Amino acid sequence: MIRVALIGSTGYTAWEVARLLLNHSGANLTVATSRSDEGKPLSEIHPSLAGRCDLALQVFDPVRIAEQADVAMCCLPHGASAQSVRELADAGMRVIDFSADFRLSSVPLYEHWYGVTHPWPERVGKVVYGMPEFFAEEIARADIVANPGCYPTSAIMPLAPLVKAGLIETDDIIVDSKSGVSGAGRTAKLGTMYCETNESIAAYAVASHRHGPEMQDLIHRIAGKPVDILFTPHLTPMDRGILSTMYARPVLQKGDTTATVASRLMQTLRDTYREQAFVHVVDHLPATKHVVMTNHVQMTVRVSGLEDRPGRVILVCAIDNLSKGASGAAIQNMNVMFGLEPTMGL
Amino acid sequence: MIRVALIGSTGYTAWEVARLLLNHSGANLTVATSRSDEGKPLSEIHPSLAGRCDLALQVFDPVRIAEQADVAMCCLPHGASAQSVRELADAGMRVIDFSADFRLSSVPLYEHWYGVTHPWPERVGKVVYGMPEFFAEEIARADIVANPGCYPTSAIMPLAPLVKAGLIETDDIIVDSKSGVSGAGRTAKLGTMYCETNESIAAYAVASHRHGPEMQDLIHRIAGKPVDILFTPHLTPMDRGILSTMYARPVLQKGDTTATVASRLMQTLRDTYREQAFVHVVDHLPATKHVVMTNHVQMTVRVSGLEDRPGRVILVCAIDNLSKGASGAAIQNMNVMFGLEPTMGL
Amino acid sequence: MIRVALIGSTGYTAWEVARLLLNHSGANLTVATSRSDEGKPLSEIHPSLAGRCDLALQVFDPVRIAEQADVAMCCLPHGASAQSVRELADAGMRVIDFSADFRLSSVPLYEHWYGVTHPWPERVGKVVYGMPEFFAEEIARADIVANPGCYPTSAIMPLAPLVKAGLIETDDIIVDSKSGVSGAGRTAKLGTMYCETNESIAAYAVASHRHGPEMQDLIHRIAGKPVDILFTPHLTPMDRGILSTMYARPVLQKGDTTATVASRLMQTLRDTYREQAFVHVVDHLPATKHVVMTNHVQMTVRVSGLEDRPGRVILVCAIDNLSKGASGAAIQNMNVMFGLEPTMGL
Amino acid sequence: MIRVALIGSTGYTAWEVARLLLNHSGANLTVATSRSDEGKPLSEIHPSLAGRCDLALQVFDPVRIAEQADVAMCCLPHGASAQSVRELADAGMRVIDFSADFRLSSVPLYEHWYGVTHPWPERVGKVVYGMPEFFAEEIARADIVANPGCYPTSAIMPLAPLVKAGLIETDDIIVDSKSGVSGAGRTAKLGTMYCETNESIAAYAVASHRHGPEMQDLIHRIAGKPVDILFTPHLTPMDRGILSTMYARPVLQKGDTTATVASRLMQTLRDTYREQAFVHVVDHLPATKHVVMTNHVQMTVRVSGLEDRPGRVILVCAIDNLSKGASGAAIQNMNVMFGLEPTMGL
Repeated sequence: MIRVALIGSTGYTAWEVARLLLNHSGANLTVATSRSDEGKPLSEIHPSLAGRCDLALQVFDPVRIAEQADVAMCCLPHGASAQSVRELADAGMRVIDFSADFRLSSVPLYEHWYGVTHPWPERVGKVVYGMPEFFAEEIARADIVANPGCYPTSAIMPLAPLVKAGLIETDDIIVDSKSGVSGAGRTAKLGTMYCETNESIAAYAVASHRHGPEMQDLIHRIAGKPVDILFTPHLTPMDRGILSTMYARPVLQKGDTTATVASRLMQTLRDTYREQAFVHVVDHLPATKHVVMTNHVQMTVRVSGLEDRPGRVILVCAIDNLSKGASGAAIQNMNVMFGLEPTMGL
Repeated sequence: MIRVALIGSTGYTAWEVARLLLNHSGANLTVATSRSDEGKPLSEIHPSLAGRCDLALQVFDPVRIAEQADVAMCCLPHGASAQSVRELADAGMRVIDFSADFRLSSVPLYEHWYGVTHPWPERVGKVVYGMPEFFAEEIARADIVANPGCYPTSAIMPLAPLVKAGLIETDDIIVDSKSGVSGAGRTAKLGTMYCETNESIAAYAVASHRHGPEMQDLIHRIAGKPVDILFTPHLTPMDRGILSTMYARPVLQKGDTTATVASRLMQTLRDTYREQAFVHVVDHLPATKHVVMTNHVQMTVRVSGLEDRPGRVILVCAIDNLSKGASGAAIQNMNVMFGLEPTMGL
Repeated sequence: MIRVALIGSTGYTAWEVARLLLNHSGANLTVATSRSDEGKPLSEIHPSLAGRCDLALQVFDPVRIAEQADVAMCCLPHGASAQSVRELADAGMRVIDFSADFRLSSVPLYEHWYGVTHPWPERVGKVVYGMPEFFAEEIARADIVANPGCYPTSAIMPLAPLVKAGLIETDDIIVDSKSGVSGAGRTAKLGTMYCETNESIAAYAVASHRHGPEMQDLIHRIAGKPVDILFTPHLTPMDRGILSTMYARPVLQKGDTTATVASRLMQTLRDTYREQAFVHVVDHLPATKHVVMTNHVQMTVRVSGLEDRPGRVILVCAIDNLSKGASGAAIQNMNVMFGLEPTMGL
Repeated sequence: MIRVALIGSTGYTAWEVARLLLNHSGANLTVATSRSDEGKPLSEIHPSLAGRCDLALQVFDPVRIAEQADVAMCCLPHGASAQSVRELADAGMRVIDFSADFRLSSVPLYEHWYGVTHPWPERVGKVVYGMPEFFAEEIARADIVANPGCYPTSAIMPLAPLVKAGLIETDDIIVDSKSGVSGAGRTAKLGTMYCETNESIAAYAVASHRHGPEMQDLIHRIAGKPVDILFTPHLTPMDRGILSTMYARPVLQKGDTTATVASRLMQTLRDTYREQAFVHVVDHLPATKHVVMTNHVQMTVRVSGLEDRPGRVILVCAIDNLSKGASGAAIQNMNVMFGLEPTMGL
């Protein structure tokens, strides 16, 4: 049995980890930490766990945690996380970091977008990105895994294979994403109060969201080519789920029709994900409802234009932001790190 | 043109007043105050007002406000409100108070339930309750009007006429109410975050909500008889609306069937509200959707039991908590106070 | 591996069975039938199953199904179900029937409330009610199990033990229930269109819903005493979940206070469910969000009145209508029927 | 008093017309027709009108309607509408047509996208498009007005002035729209059932929705230049509202920065709509909640890219699909046609 420590237990991703581990036959939650609620049972913070997981919250003590657990799931805010990750790693633990602190390739890129000095710059660029569909081997032997961002997951998975295969232009990609409100976290703020977000949709952080550079950086890393992405996130009145609608120009071949372009792109995605249990290239237009509360991904391709004059490629991808976009991916990473079936408990 | 001052402008009821006044042909918003946002346009706090009402927020200065406005709508928290109401009244203004500070009949009852010392105890019990369906004449000449609570409105309107007519027992009434989340106010709190309340219904303040005694007190005042009410509010995943489902025992007459009881109660309610533009005694089971964004009330009666053995009376009443349950009622009160058509702007 | 046949595959409860079986390590879906969609993959009807369960739908052929599966989950409409259950049983299968056809104790009671002639009246009253918390031994050896109704589950579980222990009066119980919209089924009807039910709550079938007699009948069966229940269901704007708020009179003992009454009732419920993995007697007021997407039940007790004059007992119980109220209970029943851990896959 | 006839009364746009007319001081609903519900009160179809508008539904009889009303609001399906519009016009009425039958410039364009033979082809291309912000003079003297589509309204209003002013490229515009479910109409269909659309967002009719050509056609008509638009609509879990996020390339001037481009575009929109009561060019990112239940429009501009290397223009526009996107616009058109204040009743 893998013993799991939850570092930072009050948010939605922490709750999702705890919830998923309840049905995992190869791993157990043995530690849950919280700065402010020491001694309280985890189920007091998350009442859905009442009678199901009544672990008492403890303070963050890396050495003691390393005795009680094999792997730490670090659900701390960006900036604060890196220091804790370092202390946990120093204490000998393997760590899955939910923050962005080790996702990007370079310190300047990180510091530009996150506005903080990185506390452990030497490791930046040397931590594997926790997307087992592309990096399973590195994840299997990693001491630290940078768990992917939610929006980036929904964009990288359909885009990276197409960029790598040279099927879409790299300099003109638009990602228009719609996310459920849980993506904004569990801290009480006016902007995510029920009556502010219910029955309403709005764009935010237009052309300035930190997940834009993460998408670019990782597609570059996976596909070997730089890409230019314009990213617009929207807050959507639902708990969970991300739908990303993406617009790109196809690289055309002689005689191409909308049908041949669509077919080639679908085939490339199908080939890429044939062996991947969680990724489904589907004919229908995916809805977030088809994937929420699962670690699964649904994606499809459409091509605009007149039949013999293909216009743009439209990609649609649906994930659950809390599962494949966070805690489900973390469990999947843990499974890979410890040699379990990738799908166990998911 | 009646000039209206909004005292405390950041909440949902204040927004609703401002919104309603935009379409009122006999009144204008001329003042809006805020402790914390002096100088900002009201539309910065409530973006739906952008380009429609850009009044600058000012600090609370009763004398100055009395020069700029004829009536004050006081949207301050319970406890804090009474003092401001007093100062506005002293400055010569007529005031509609949204708080509970002057709703109850006695100081001890108020202080027991609200846990504060009342700053103006002499006026308690001498302020008219702003329900024009019962108190129009007093409202017309009032300097201060205590605007009713939202839950009490939904319970008093169907219950009071039936208690008064002696058609239901007074000692065994249950009010099970379901409210939209806007009733909980606009202050950021974990409990009213989107992801905490969406897709979920829960009871709260069971047998201990302050609106229970308000219902009892007012039905007593209107019907002339004390009643015993067990009140349970529920937080429902919707912005607006209250549905109250009420259970009472009928006072039976010889030969009564479920049909005769239902018919007698419906008739009494129809007779009570025949002249009232906003109250509709309907045959269908009202949904909150039938009344939200209006000042209208829909109510109906059902009787349980075998045909010849009538059981309990079930009353269902739907209102909009922000309109008839707060700001719409306030506009209606203002119309009555100033001799306008009660329905103007509503 | 238990082989499961799904009879009637297009509704939400069928989807929930299929979904739950994907993560069940002791059972597999091997058959799915549909009158109208023969040959189509199940995932075309339920796109969330794409790439996860692509079983082709077949017509209803009891003999053939009996070769392919060990147990049938019969998700057919009331009235139509009994005949199919009979044919499946005749073919030698064990059957879990989701309809109400075998839930009630007597044919006249059934025929009065369901308005149809029962096709297999001899079995009525001789089929175990699928609530393993009370009938595990009978379920373990049953050929047919009548899977409980969703509302009855939420009412029977808190009420039956208290009636049995003589702690509440039996002649004056009110059940005010609030259900998510999935309880109304997946047939396209105006009343359950998004824009009709969203942002709205309404009572329906007041004092006339078929689940009222089911509650009475089963509490009678479990507690050994007849009870009189007034039941009001409400349609609530959420996908899943039932919250039942119940009102009963306590049987008082000398010297009782609200605290002693509450404590005695809580203790009785705790004692009843101590060994039951899915039932949690909690101190907090349960919300449906605490239990949706699980087979768990949360319940609590409150007592109204002045401290030394206890008033009414208020019980609150939350379940997921599609899980513990339907498909989760069915899986739990299957586990018990086949000697697996009751919690397996749940 | 203008007398208004509602032709086709069961849908959401018809309800919205009836609702808006209740508060219109210059117009009255005098006729409401329905094929299937003759004789029933309108409030039986739309229970929110109970006690407020109990007009009896009548069959469609153009001559009789022309005696009872001055203007007809024709809320019939595309294809069927044109014939009724013709008969009403022949009977001497002025008509506002909610369908697409007279919106497009040419019969072939219409017949290609709507797949039907147009019953009155001679009038196609000669009916004014009911957007008073651009066509007020023609509307004022029109016998027939083609009321705009909801998505087109949200796209034309920000795009047309920028295309006309030559500030954005015309050959590469993407419109990614998110609509509330009421846009799909009130006919019971699986796809718009509560549990299918709630808590979910999905794209539909990608690159094939009929509102794409309407946008292109009208921008061409208003701006005098052909444009190429890729349009993707999304079904969003909310009753009302459309948010359109649009991507275009700016036409750059020497020395342009992201700030100068944004400022020039904002200024052009502000100049265009300065005199328009319903259109607000705002600094904040509009949410649909800011405009629902009103006839108002909010729009803004952002520019991506590094400060000195402007990338794309992002336009965001929010409207209420049932109000400014349908019935509010119709009332506004009626006001203009009959010489009333454009804002009356809105």
